[in-house]
Order: sequence, then C-alpha cells, then structure tokens
Amino acid sequence: MLVVMKPQASPAQIDAVLEKIRGLGLTPHAIPGAQRVAIGMTGNKGAIDAGHFVSMPGVADAIRVSQPFKLVSREVKEEDTVIEVGGACIGGPTVCVMAGPCSVESREQILEAAHGVKRLGATFLRGGAFKPRTSPYEFQGLGEEGLKLLALAREQTGLKVVTEVMDPDDLSMCAEYADVLQIGARNMQNFSLLKKLGAMRKPVLLKRGPAALLREWLMAAEYLLSEGNYQVALCERGIRTFETMTRNTLDLNAVPVLKSLTHLPVIVDPSHGIGLRRHVPAMARAAIAAGADGIIVEVHPRPECALSDGQQSLSLPEFGELMAQARVIAGAVGRPFQPG
Amino acid sequence: MLVVMKPQASPAQIDAVLEKIRGLGLTPHAIPGAQRVAIGMTGNKGAIDAGHFVSMPGVADAIRVSQPFKLVSREVKEEDTVIEVGGACIGGPTVCVMAGPCSVESREQILEAAHGVKRLGATFLRGGAFKPRTSPYEFQGLGEEGLKLLALAREQTGLKVVTEVMDPDDLSMCAEYADVLQIGARNMQNFSLLKKLGAMRKPVLLKRGPAALLREWLMAAEYLLSEGNYQVALCERGIRTFETMTRNTLDLNAVPVLKSLTHLPVIVDPSHGIGLRRHVPAMARAAIAAGADGIIVEVHPRPECALSDGQQSLSLPEFGELMAQARVIAGAVGRPFQPG
Amino acid sequence: MLVVMKPQASPAQIDAVLEKIRGLGLTPHAIPGAQRVAIGMTGNKGAIDAGHFVSMPGVADAIRVSQPFKLVSREVKEEDTVIEVGGACIGGPTVCVMAGPCSVESREQILEAAHGVKRLGATFLRGGAFKPRTSPYEFQGLGEEGLKLLALAREQTGLKVVTEVMDPDDLSMCAEYADVLQIGARNMQNFSLLKKLGAMRKPVLLKRGPAALLREWLMAAEYLLSEGNYQVALCERGIRTFETMTRNTLDLNAVPVLKSLTHLPVIVDPSHGIGLRRHVPAMARAAIAAGADGIIVEVHPRPECALSDGQQSLSLPEFGELMAQARVIAGAVGRPFQPG
Amino acid sequence: MLVVMKPQASPAQIDAVLEKIRGLGLTPHAIPGAQRVAIGMTGNKGAIDAGHFVSMPGVADAIRVSQPFKLVSREVKEEDTVIEVGGACIGGPTVCVMAGPCSVESREQILEAAHGVKRLGATFLRGGAFKPRTSPYEFQGLGEEGLKLLALAREQTGLKVVTEVMDPDDLSMCAEYADVLQIGARNMQNFSLLKKLGAMRKPVLLKRGPAALLREWLMAAEYLLSEGNYQVALCERGIRTFETMTRNTLDLNAVPVLKSLTHLPVIVDPSHGIGLRRHVPAMARAAIAAGADGIIVEVHPRPECALSDGQQSLSLPEFGELMAQARVIAGAVGRPFQPG
Repeated sequence: MLVVMKPQASPAQIDAVLEKIRGLGLTPHAIPGAQRVAIGMTGNKGAIDAGHFVSMPGVADAIRVSQPFKLVSREVKEEDTVIEVGGACIGGPTVCVMAGPCSVESREQILEAAHGVKRLGATFLRGGAFKPRTSPYEFQGLGEEGLKLLALAREQTGLKVVTEVMDPDDLSMCAEYADVLQIGARNMQNFSLLKKLGAMRKPVLLKRGPAALLREWLMAAEYLLSEGNYQVALCERGIRTFETMTRNTLDLNAVPVLKSLTHLPVIVDPSHGIGLRRHVPAMARAAIAAGADGIIVEVHPRPECALSDGQQSLSLPEFGELMAQARVIAGAVGRPFQPG
Repeated sequence: MLVVMKPQASPAQIDAVLEKIRGLGLTPHAIPGAQRVAIGMTGNKGAIDAGHFVSMPGVADAIRVSQPFKLVSREVKEEDTVIEVGGACIGGPTVCVMAGPCSVESREQILEAAHGVKRLGATFLRGGAFKPRTSPYEFQGLGEEGLKLLALAREQTGLKVVTEVMDPDDLSMCAEYADVLQIGARNMQNFSLLKKLGAMRKPVLLKRGPAALLREWLMAAEYLLSEGNYQVALCERGIRTFETMTRNTLDLNAVPVLKSLTHLPVIVDPSHGIGLRRHVPAMARAAIAAGADGIIVEVHPRPECALSDGQQSLSLPEFGELMAQARVIAGAVGRPFQPG
Repeated sequence: MLVVMKPQASPAQIDAVLEKIRGLGLTPHAIPGAQRVAIGMTGNKGAIDAGHFVSMPGVADAIRVSQPFKLVSREVKEEDTVIEVGGACIGGPTVCVMAGPCSVESREQILEAAHGVKRLGATFLRGGAFKPRTSPYEFQGLGEEGLKLLALAREQTGLKVVTEVMDPDDLSMCAEYADVLQIGARNMQNFSLLKKLGAMRKPVLLKRGPAALLREWLMAAEYLLSEGNYQVALCERGIRTFETMTRNTLDLNAVPVLKSLTHLPVIVDPSHGIGLRRHVPAMARAAIAAGADGIIVEVHPRPECALSDGQQSLSLPEFGELMAQARVIAGAVGRPFQPG
Repeated sequence: MLVVMKPQASPAQIDAVLEKIRGLGLTPHAIPGAQRVAIGMTGNKGAIDAGHFVSMPGVADAIRVSQPFKLVSREVKEEDTVIEVGGACIGGPTVCVMAGPCSVESREQILEAAHGVKRLGATFLRGGAFKPRTSPYEFQGLGEEGLKLLALAREQTGLKVVTEVMDPDDLSMCAEYADVLQIGARNMQNFSLLKKLGAMRKPVLLKRGPAALLREWLMAAEYLLSEGNYQVALCERGIRTFETMTRNTLDLNAVPVLKSLTHLPVIVDPSHGIGLRRHVPAMARAAIAAGADGIIVEVHPRPECALSDGQQSLSLPEFGELMAQARVIAGAVGRPFQPG
C-alpha cells in the first residue's frame, strides 16, 4: 500500500497519515518527491484496506503495491530518482561516465588516471582501496592510503569519487573520503553491510551479484531504502553463465527491465561484464543504446602493468575512443553526456 | 593450415595446390575471396609443415590456424562474408532488417504483415511454416501451405523470405519456396540436418542453441562450410540462464566476440532474446550499437491474436517506432540500413 | 482429462468411450495397464466436462490432468512403466545396468567389451555407431558396420543392444539391429525425429538435453507417447552449468522429482554426467541411492586408446569394482540388480 | 612449495625451516599432522627452488604445489582433516548428522527439535539465530536470545551447536554460545568476515555460494586456513541453474571432486539443495553414497508452522525415516554413523 499525498498537503496532514499507519501496527516510510510526498508502509501480513486512507485530508490516492519490493518500485515512486553529488548527477536526463583504475596503486598512477579521464569527459573517478580478491595471496589494495590518494585526485580534478567498501568497520572511514560507496558483487546480499549503509546518508552504487535474480537485487536495494537511504543506484556488471570465452555475461536485458520496475538509476559496467579489453567499447555503446543511465569503465594509464584486472582495463587513448563513440550513441538516444 | 594464393595466381597453380593437399591424404577447401583465393585443409592429425606449400608457384603464404574451427575463422578468411540474396544483403557495410510473424497463420495475416514491414523498411520477411513447439499439442505450423503463402508475399512485396526447416525430408521443398533457410536453436547441433544443408547452395541462418558455447556454435557452422556451403549467417537469440523475468538472456557479448573470431555475418533476434514485447526495441537498439549486422524481429498485425509468441511480437506501429530508433543508432555507428 | 475404465470393462464399452471422445473433436489415447485401461485425450482448448464420461457403462472415473504433460504423467498412469526387452527389463523392481564403449571401433574392441561387461553383470550393451561430434573433423562412427558388430556382440553374449540414432533416414536400419534406440542429448527437441520414432514400436532411451528443463524433457517424451510409443525411458546425463571442473553437472535432483511426476523409468549416465573417470563410481552409487531405475556406463577395454570419450570411460577392472559397490547400494535400497 | 618434515624432526629443525622461509621473504605455514609436520609457504611470485630445503636436517621432502589453493589442498596435507568438537567429529571414518530447524523460533520449538533429533541419532544441532533473508521485511531471527536457547538445548541434550554468523560484530558472541560457526552461502566471499573468522580458533562450516566455482570455494576456505584456522568443513547446499522445479540444484558432483582435491571434510545440505520436503531423503541417501562426510538436514517439530523454510523441513517422523534409510547407505559404503 502506498499513500500518495496531494502536492499541497500540509506537514500536519502528512503526520496524521504517518500516525494512522503506526496505529495499524505498521512502519511508515515517507518518500520524498519533487511534486508530492508519498508514504509507503511495511510490516503487514496481508492486504491493507485503502479505505483507511483515501478520505483523510491531503491524501490524493492509496495504491496497492503488487511486487515484493516496495520502496524501490515504480508503483510507489513513478518519477526517476536522480542522485546529486556536488554538481554531478547519477540518473536524470543525462548519461554519466565513471572511469578509473581497478585499484589505486600509487600517487602517480591515480593522479595520471584521474586527470586523463577528466580531460576525456568523465565526471566520476572509480578506484579501489579495498579489493575483494578470490585468493588471499593476491594484492588486497592500499587501504586508507588508497582512500587518501582518491581524495587528493578529487581535489585536483573535481571528479567525484566512487570506491568499494567491504568491511563494516571501514564504513565511516570510506564515507569520509568518498562521494559514492560501492557494494561489490560478492557482497550484494551481505545484509549486515547493507543495513549499516542504509542507516547512512551517503549515495550507494549497488552491484549485482553474479548469480542474482533481478528480484533479489531489487530486494537488496530495498534493504538500503527501508533503512532510510534513498540515494541508491544499481550497477549491472555481468552474470555467471556457462559461457567461458567472456569473463562474465553482461546482461543488458536487465537495463530495460529494471527501468520499468524501479525508479533507481541503472549503471552498466562493461569492463567486468565482458572482461575483454578490446570488446569493452562495443558493450559500453550497447549499454547506452539500451537505456542505461551511465557507464563505469576501468581505465589505467598502463593496463599491462596493472596490479589487478589489466586484461579488461582500457588505456587512456582507448578510453578516449570509447568516449567519442559513446557520446554519439548517447546523442542518438536523446541523453547527452553530463558536461564534465 | 591455410594456403593463401597470390591475387594473380592462375587456375593451374591453384589446382596444383589442391592436388598437393590431396597427396598428403587431406581434404582441400578452396575459399573464394574478392582479392584472392585461399585454400584450407582438414583431416590432419597434427601440425602440417608450411614448407610443403610456401615455395609453390602462385602461393603468397601458408598460415597456421590455431582454433578448432577453421573455415569459419577470421584467420582463414579475414574479410567479412556478405551473403547476397537477390538485391538484398546479409553482412557488409549496411545493417539488414528481417521482420514478420512467428508463424504463418493465414493469407491475410502474412500479406498484411509483409506489406507492413516492407513499408516500414524491412528487406527480409520472416515467418514459420514448420514450428518447433515444446508440446505436441500446440499449433505446429501450416506446412507447405505456409511456404506457398510466404512465396506469395515475396512476389507481392519483393521481400526475401527466411523460414525455418526442421525435417531433412522438407529440405528441398523449403529451398524451393524460401530464400534463406533457418536452423532453429533446438537443432543447432542436429548434425544430420547440418550436413544435408551444407551440401545445398542456399543461404542459411544458424540460430544459437540456448546453451551453446560460442565455440560449439562456430563448430556447428563449420559443419555447413566444411560441406561446401559458405553462405552462412549466425543468429544470437538468447541463452538460458538462471534469470526468469525474461524469456531468455539475450547475449550481446556474443556480437563483438564473434565479429573478431569469424567472418560470418551476425544477426540478433531481440524478440526471442528478451521475450517481452515492450523491451524488444531497447534490445534491438543495443544489438546494432554492439555491432550486429542485422536484426530479426517478430511483427504481427494483431499480436494479441497470434497463434504463437504473441507476448513478444510487435504490432506494426510498434515496429515502426523501433525502426525509427534503430535507424538512428545504425547511423551513429556508421552502418545505415539497407535501402528497402 | 483421463477416463479410467473399470477392470472388467468390455472392449465394446472401451470403444464407446473412444467414439465419444472423437465425437467431441478430440484424439483419444488408450493407455494399457495391468489392471485396467485408461483413456487420455488431447486436442482440447479448455477444460472438458467430466460429465460426458462418468455415467457411461464401464467407466470407473474421469480425472482432470493438471500438468502440460499428460500421457507421461503419474496422474494418468499411476503404476510404473516396465519396458521388457527379451528377458531384460528397464524399470520395475530391479536396477538395470547398461555398459559398453562410447563408440564401436572394431570387431575386437566391441566383443571384448561385451563379453567383459556381461561377465561383470550388465544386461544391456551400449555402443555408438553414429556419433554426434562437436567438430565435423572428428571420428563420426562406423555407421552400419558398427550396427552389425553390435548385433554380433548380442548374438554372442545375450546382452540387449542400446544405440543412438541421429538421422531419420537411419531409423529402420537402426531398429533392425538394436533393441533400444537412444535419442542423444543434442536431439532431445528434434521433434521430427521424435515423431518418427513415436510412430515405431521400439523402446526408446531419451536423453536429457544439456539445458532442458524437466518440464521440457517430459514434453519431449510426450511427443513419443502421443504418437503411440509407450516404451520410453528417460536418461539424465548431466546439465550445463557454470562449473568447469566437471564435464557436465550430473543432476541427481532430477531422479526423485521425475519419479514423482512420471511413470517412465529413469536411467542415469554418470559417465557423461561428471565426465571424469575416477569419479564415475561415486556418481553411479549416488544415482542408485537416489532411486534411479538403472545406470548406463561407458566401459572400454583400453580407455587410453578410445577414439572418443576415453577420459570418462572405465576399464573392465574399474567397471568390476563399480559393480561391486553399486550392487551393495542397490541392495540397501531394496532394488537388487537384474540377474545377468 | 611444501616442506615435509621427517616424523622425528625436532622443534629446532622445524624452526630452522621456518626461519629459512622468512629469510626468502615468504610467510611460512606450519601444518599439524598426526605423523609429521609439514610447512607450506605463501607470498612467492614464481616457483621456489626445492634445493633451499631438501638438504636441511629433519626435512623429508620438498613438494611443488600446483594448485592456486595451497593449505586446503591434498598435495599439502594428504590425510583427512578431522574436526573434533567435544566428543563429536566432523570428518574421519564415520558419517556425522547435523539436524534442526532453519530458525530458532521459541524455547519450546528448539528444545522439542533438539530432543527429537538427538533421540533419532543426530550429533549436531543446527538452528539459526541470525537469518539472512532476501527481503528486509521477513523474519530476521531472534538474535542473542536465539543463541541462548541453542546453548540451553546443548546443555539438555549434549548435541553440539552449529549456527550461522553474518555480522563481524557478532562473532565473539556467537563463538561464546556455539560449537561450530557457519558461513552462509551468500557470505562465502565476504572476505572481511572470513579473515576475522580465520583469526579465531573455532570450527567453521563454510557453505558454497550458489554460483561459486569449486575453485573459488576452495580459495574462500584458503582465506580461513591462511589466517591460521585449520578447523574448516565445506558444505555443498545446491547451486543456481536454469532449472526451476527444484529450489536449487544440489551438486553431488562436488563431493568426489572435493574429496580428491582437499583434505577438508565435505558435508551436504539436501534441504536447501533440492528444497522440496518429500525429496530430501533421496538426496541425503545419494550424498552419503557419493562419499560425503556428513549431512545437515532441516527438521522442525511442525514444518507447516515454521517461520522460514517450512516447505523443505522434515517433521520428526520423516527425519526418523530418513535416518533409517541413510544409516543403511552409510553402512553400505563402510562409514557408519557416529554413535549419538
């Protein structure tokens, strides 16, 4: 059940609805909108009678929500969520570009990457300080030192910083240095981490687990929203299938399906998705043509020397070519790049 | 091993190489090219010494082929295969559009569909006369009557006809009425059928099996080429994954990977791929942006009355919208639509 | 709808029901049973009124069938189907063992294999004369010569012969030499082949396609039964998943699920299923413990010299060990081996 | 590289090898064995020369380790790991049985379940106090109250307690009440949690992620061992495939493959694996026949009232029947149940 308030509803009228919901033993969730406030509710076992709400002052409508996911659903909030980060946006009329190396490796590397991708049109800098690695014997990231280098790169370039957080103990530290916190694919259903991040007011980029159903992914996002954090973007990064020629199978079907089910922005990571450097541009173009709100691309000043994921990282000149192609596609679908 | 002849090599020089190969107990395969002839060979157990060929008159080079697929590989034939069907083309500088109903249902239906898609820019008409159905109790197609209606539609519109053949006994009948014979996904590894079709000189559209590795798909195409039929196009139509919200998972990763491995044209079927009518246009756009040589789309004058696949068929107005969008993307990647 | 006749129903009463069904525009399917005859019907669009039948003389009951598969379903025929082949059985109270090489390679090889597996307790000899191979350049089987060698081995050992048929043109030839015709995994949905085999009266072993849903597999069997061939056994042989350490993923979950849905016997092929010689015995034991009606195992006198599948074939001593282990498990689940 | 010490090697000789390894810039890992000590090492980029070690006093051999997983591998430790928990064992000559409800729901429920499964022969009690749920709106477990009830059940029955830990902040609390800490499937690659649990000296049951390659699973276990915790058992619980009739696809192929690759015990969870109450016993039997070291089964006094997973939980009488069947299979493979 979603109670939609009239545009001119007063704070007192909204409070009365919240109180009514609590009186029914349920938890209200006020959802901010540009035109009006809507109020979702959770905790019910069966259907709720719309009659409780429709005649209350200031209420425009009470809508049944048919999906197991609620706050993330378009039934509850029809208009697109736009996440504003300083001057940059995720979602909305423009396509955003996030780029940078897999891992922060050194001062020189991250600054060269940041200046390079900034010059070529990116608005967000990606880079890992804490790296989830299949083997305990592989490079695990620079930790706080990496976060500081990302902050330095932001200071020099104006790019917003996206970085992965893996450990709940590092949350506040990561939040201090970064603009957007990424939940990695392997942690998509790390519910402890989701709940803690949901309680923060920091934008989140939630990657899809490699075997996650779209429904499960939306439910993972629902963990964030149900704790009060509405600044969530979804990131498709490839699913696991039987095919072995590509690292993963980038599932672009997810883009139009998600855009119809949820108001959250949908970003695509073609680098992990196909995992083959020479084919990243084709998948980036396809993602934008399919309606994605942005792309996140691995770019390294010297991919052949990267400490991780070098085989799928673009060099700066390759990224420049991709940007030229992607810009044309973005124009063709009526969604220009954000001005850098 | 591939022996590449010089552009000016004489027929006698080519014959000498063919003879030499036969003398080694192997089977030669002469591969036609715009500039020069190349000669592949199969039947060897181990590596063949290039020294047998390099000093023969008219020979430019002898190249080791590293993949298990040979005649379909770009190593053996670098330039793109273009299949010419009357005035229409599959592959080459333009993007081709194939459209029409899942099944031929009646004279009125197929003619209305054909005239409609022709007017909106398609150059090929698709339509099934023999339908592979999961259940023996479902509509199995009109058979030869359906083929005759397709031929009639071709006569009236000039569209080239693509239709599926399932039974080796129907091969010559289908070849008589149709321009391109389609091997369906469930028959991708029906090797008896492949061999018989390989012995014909009729263009083939080979759909990917729902669980076929790219390597297996290319090997299935190799069955056709090794029997002498070089007019083969591949059609990605979605793979089977764990996701259930979409009918299949259209694997657009296949497009750039295939384009780098093989010279055969790659067509994409967004209708079966995602299986949801409202999302077909997004996937069609993405396919073209990823570099596909064409799309094949299910279009029905009245999708809600279709005897099969109505839930994924576009109406004619919807197809018109898709064409407008797809045309823009095709232009953006420098590959205009074929003139209808 | 299934019309169940009383045990003492007369032929005339049965004919009256068949006539009634035809009168409703439907196709009747009389299903033989040890105690009574049941009559299924197909061709209906919606539900059929049981009232048409319940008051007819000789009719015991009229039952709604809820599944898309009908004749294969336990709703329609509760008792297990037992396929009798000479003195040997597939299904019923005992577990049957089918064994032999992947391909028939020579007179010596097949006779040595046949005598060996006979001595160790198998009742069926498997061996391929027509081989579906991923590559057109691999060994394709001995063809009719292989069939003759299988028949010779049967003559010498009394083993019943199971062999794969791929091409409809070879059906009558294969039926002449073999006792059970196998449909391979890649042809599970080759509906032309299924229909032709359904019209014969020869036992069929229908392998599961590597990406076939259980529902699709049962529908493929339905093609055989709906054409009148009720002697069908199902063979689980591994599905395709993301795991790469094993050739396929043998899906033993299929065994109890199928046994509850269908009356057809369920055989398990651990050789293709796991694809690793040393692990075949463990999976064979597990199959019997899960309730399989039999196993089909690749055995070769000299696996290291096999022309196909050597890496998953057992030697005769290894097969002897497997038989000893499997015999104990079969006893433990109360289903002794068939006497050889 | 693994340095194997002679059985009579002195502590000083062992120390000398440890020192030598540190001197090469690597990290030594002494691995306890019944007969002898072995010393692994990690941190090397390329191959290490065995010559460094073979001539040192007390050294029996120096073995190259070919797999990316090292400490978990049979190359490094040939003999089976047996985890002793009070009088009960995981691994070794007997098969262990873990049983109990999905979630701890109340004092009455857990005590009734515990006394019931104890009487029927289980030696471990499973039960969740912290539940990972797809939806934030579903029952999340009783938390510490649940742990206390599990400890009470242990006190009354002598069963050892297995329970899942999700949040690093709960680790020490869970360790206080439980005997074995379970890492759930969704957290298999939650490396922060693995590292913290690796630093404890508490047995761990590591479930396989629903899309985890066997290699990735072994690498996740390697995280635990490389931090010093050698008391690790693996638990197969079903993988995600395209099949939808079963909840997951229990992958019994994993059992023999893992047993050949690693010395760690392998437990099978047929309840989550197939997810259908009536088919759990068949899969439990099959697991033991395939060589599993134990089973973990969901049992609830009243499955129809369970707050989670009722559709796959056995009642106590059903569990009794399963135990009778499983006991026979365990006997047949020469691995009797542990005395309760």
